Amino acid sequence: MRLSNLFVPTLRDDPADAEIASHRLLLRAGFVRRLTAGVYTFLPLALRVMRKVEAIVREEMEAAGSIEVRVPIVLPAEPWKVTGRWKAYGNEVFKLEDRHGREMMLGPTEEEVFAPLVASDLPSYRDLPINLFQVEWKYRDEKRPRYGLLRCREFLMKDAYSFDRDEAGMAESYRIMYEAYVRVFDRIGIDYVIVEADPGTIGGGINHEFMALADVGEDLFVRCVNGDYLADTEAATPQAPIPLEEVELEPMVEVDTPGAATIELVASQLGVDAARTLKNIMFDIDGSSVAVLVPGDREVSVKKLARLHFPEVVRAFDDGDFERLGYAKGYVGPHGFGDDVTIFADHSVKAGANWVTGANRPDTHVTGANLDRDFRVARWEDLVEVRDGDRCPNDGGELEVGRSIAVGHIYQLWTNYSAPLETTFQDEDGSDKPYMMGSYGIGITRILAALVEQHHDEQGMVWPKNMAPFQVAVIMANADDEPVRTEAERIYAELLERGVEAVLDDRDERAGVKFADADLIGYPVQVTVGKRGLGEGTVDLKLRATGERSKAPLDAATQAIVDLLAGAV
Amino acid sequence: MRLSNLFVPTLRDDPADAEIASHRLLLRAGFVRRLTAGVYTFLPLALRVMRKVEAIVREEMEAAGSIEVRVPIVLPAEPWKVTGRWKAYGNEVFKLEDRHGREMMLGPTEEEVFAPLVASDLPSYRDLPINLFQVEWKYRDEKRPRYGLLRCREFLMKDAYSFDRDEAGMAESYRIMYEAYVRVFDRIGIDYVIVEADPGTIGGGINHEFMALADVGEDLFVRCVNGDYLADTEAATPQAPIPLEEVELEPMVEVDTPGAATIELVASQLGVDAARTLKNIMFDIDGSSVAVLVPGDREVSVKKLARLHFPEVVRAFDDGDFERLGYAKGYVGPHGFGDDVTIFADHSVKAGANWVTGANRPDTHVTGANLDRDFRVARWEDLVEVRDGDRCPNDGGELEVGRSIAVGHIYQLWTNYSAPLETTFQDEDGSDKPYMMGSYGIGITRILAALVEQHHDEQGMVWPKNMAPFQVAVIMANADDEPVRTEAERIYAELLERGVEAVLDDRDERAGVKFADADLIGYPVQVTVGKRGLGEGTVDLKLRATGERSKAPLDAATQAIVDLLAGAV
Repeated sequence: MRLSNLFVPTLRDDPADAEIASHRLLLRAGFVRRLTAGVYTFLPLALRVMRKVEAIVREEMEAAGSIEVRVPIVLPAEPWKVTGRWKAYGNEVFKLEDRHGREMMLGPTEEEVFAPLVASDLPSYRDLPINLFQVEWKYRDEKRPRYGLLRCREFLMKDAYSFDRDEAGMAESYRIMYEAYVRVFDRIGIDYVIVEADPGTIGGGINHEFMALADVGEDLFVRCVNGDYLADTEAATPQAPIPLEEVELEPMVEVDTPGAATIELVASQLGVDAARTLKNIMFDIDGSSVAVLVPGDREVSVKKLARLHFPEVVRAFDDGDFERLGYAKGYVGPHGFGDDVTIFADHSVKAGANWVTGANRPDTHVTGANLDRDFRVARWEDLVEVRDGDRCPNDGGELEVGRSIAVGHIYQLWTNYSAPLETTFQDEDGSDKPYMMGSYGIGITRILAALVEQHHDEQGMVWPKNMAPFQVAVIMANADDEPVRTEAERIYAELLERGVEAVLDDRDERAGVKFADADLIGYPVQVTVGKRGLGEGTVDLKLRATGERSKAPLDAATQAIVDLLAGAV
Repeated sequence: MRLSNLFVPTLRDDPADAEIASHRLLLRAGFVRRLTAGVYTFLPLALRVMRKVEAIVREEMEAAGSIEVRVPIVLPAEPWKVTGRWKAYGNEVFKLEDRHGREMMLGPTEEEVFAPLVASDLPSYRDLPINLFQVEWKYRDEKRPRYGLLRCREFLMKDAYSFDRDEAGMAESYRIMYEAYVRVFDRIGIDYVIVEADPGTIGGGINHEFMALADVGEDLFVRCVNGDYLADTEAATPQAPIPLEEVELEPMVEVDTPGAATIELVASQLGVDAARTLKNIMFDIDGSSVAVLVPGDREVSVKKLARLHFPEVVRAFDDGDFERLGYAKGYVGPHGFGDDVTIFADHSVKAGANWVTGANRPDTHVTGANLDRDFRVARWEDLVEVRDGDRCPNDGGELEVGRSIAVGHIYQLWTNYSAPLETTFQDEDGSDKPYMMGSYGIGITRILAALVEQHHDEQGMVWPKNMAPFQVAVIMANADDEPVRTEAERIYAELLERGVEAVLDDRDERAGVKFADADLIGYPVQVTVGKRGLGEGTVDLKLRATGERSKAPLDAATQAIVDLLAGAV
């Protein structure tokens, strides 16, 4: 392609609201444009990279026996009500009504469409296993869309669904997809880890997340320094602290703590460590009140709590809830709960005693609150957010938290969707059974952002050659010079003939602008054809990744470029 | 591909609610499945055909200098309010609110997105002309979705937009697209006509529609039997009837017409021809009342009326309007209108006299109503729906109405969108000017339906070889017979090696089912490998289009298939 015939509107300056490199560079290099919050237009260079990602995904999915179809984006609400996700997603999905007042939504994932599709057309055990996939835009009405393509409201996904007779079949379908995903991400060349993950609101059992390592990633994972453990923070289950030796139980005594409605304030007023205070977080779970107890220096993992209650909707108390139920916000203590509150506690609460906690009156706490004597726990669970320094569940080694971008996620769904949807097949014995399902997602637009996060420097993007929008840029340094034009055109034509994905910068721009753009866009190999070089019978070559420059004789330029590209990453 | 590894759920019986061939066959042959009204899932065979259509469209668009991008489906409402289409489309578009209550919609076409995109990044006359396209799903909340892929609520479109400095540039961009469209539809091999069309609510001037001929088509066009005129019925302007010679004007007299609230009833009660009655159709146009007069045997073209008033919203009176304004529905006559009603009349009303029309009282009409003496017309326009027998505007020849499926539409938009959106470029003289735009659509999913309408018979689809999902089906007549399997596999493998798009029917089904499916799906060439043939050292070949059968010796089968395919349509 010729840049003069493409639409690559590069920007000289960093866009104001782009906080991370991929967002900034995708805008600056003319890959994307924002239409509205979390909704982007994709320009030609972005399309080229996305198509390369798509091609790898399609090839590996097909090689793994998955069959491509295309299901709608606008979906009727009914099956989502049946599975409970219409309510569970709440306003995380875009909901709408058609002209006849029928409720519809924009698909965020499509279990509710694929299961009925398969059930109506593949009703026999002889039709199984089957695995269907599509590549299509998905929708999620994120509360705070941000970071460009990382947290979008409209994003391109490959989603696939497997259907099996039994657990062994599901596990085998899952294994095949797991291996296909490894091939996909290896071929794309992204730096990633695979972690055991939280199933979230999709429901189900075993699942793995494919996470591209990135300092700006919003998806946290933990790994043991000894290398024997890797998990999504939401799924990570650190070893509980060792229970206390016998300690002397103090009496429970009220103390004045004026204005100390947070853990930090009460710890500081009373001069105790936050870890010695007992945090009570109140939730409404489908109309019932639940208190979750964790040591004051830990955070409650709402996702872990939500998973325990899926598909019920977990919502933290708001001011209205505290008022209505008569609890003093900021001063709640578990000894004051009636039968209407169920108390959950994290395992680590077992390891403490003589807690400082709320007295259930404003500006007042108690000291010396103790389990069983002063308060009871209905259910012990792993409910804390894991953090650096927690202990590995395998060997007790230190855990560290890493940041990443989730680019793939695979799930064993069992019959969590097929059973409520009553999507069944007839088994060999004549009985109707719900399919054992798996579900498999890859975020195509997120991969685009993750690649830029992993491959950029101060000057711009640095594309690996298999993913670059173009592999070689031939730059006419002096577009008004006839010999320069002729030689650049010749080299460009020869590269195309050799099957190299080349772009010709034939724009009517200063050489400096073209060099800056080439660095910004990050073509792996840059070739400059200029007056001075031609005078010496040479062209200038540059490897974007290393900055290494060389010269090639004019008459052997094309071969030199091909060789340089062959050696590039 | 092997059919055993594909998802091609053919149906033995015709689906109940499929009225037309394409709808019925696309369902039966396992190409599509309905999710909800006007919303379809596309299965592998449909995807293959759609990708072929897409490939031709992309190639010709790129060859014509158009650049591919991808703009969002979920759009903010604001620019649509600026152009007036938020209101003009009404509930024809899917509207929604995001979680923050911001109004959004699903794109039915995208002028309101492309113009600001170009204006923000290509602000100089030096950047022009430019033409951008995309292939993406579009949405229209049809009142009565029907006929399968012909009238969908979710459909795949190629949409393109050109941006020019001036009228000459726009006309040239339009010409280039017109020619590209001719190449697209010629290559697809669809039987079509190009007609001058009604611009509809998109606004603008010259525009052409590419219409695939089909008896079931809902898009009417007219042509002169002398071959000198071709137009969309909504744009067709037949010659007005020759005005009457001097006729004696009768007095206007009231007559009782109990219960005769329709033209048919009053004509029959009074024993006059419907053409002698005067029809008054009442409209609300953005709050003002308009009466449209046409002879009683003609229909008012609401689209022509709407075009005259675009972007105002034209709506026929409902019972409430008649009641509120005190007009007797079914008995309205133009002599009774006050100043609050503007009277439009079709030119043909000039050619009549002594009209029978309503007396503005229930169960009563008048005879002898005459123009100027009894009623006045504020504006004369072409307002009738054209019909068979109308006279050609060029030579007065007889017009005949044909049916078709609109598969492409190109528009000169002038500055109808760019001006209200204030999307301007800086011209050479430093002044800011709105772009001169063009807009160009191709309905990909409709083409799929139109191809089936044009290429089918009693047994099923009959694909032309360049559009077929697969060109050759190799059928294992006896899948449990080892030599049959071996030879079928060999021929299949050899066809793939020769670059033929072949499918192997290796399913565990009876031969009769396989033959019926092959006819239903309509592969251009069918090859049957069966026990009996192998005994004679032959395979059976069949050309789907003609039903012609032949035999080929086993050892020369692949070449015979390639030759047969080469000669096929």
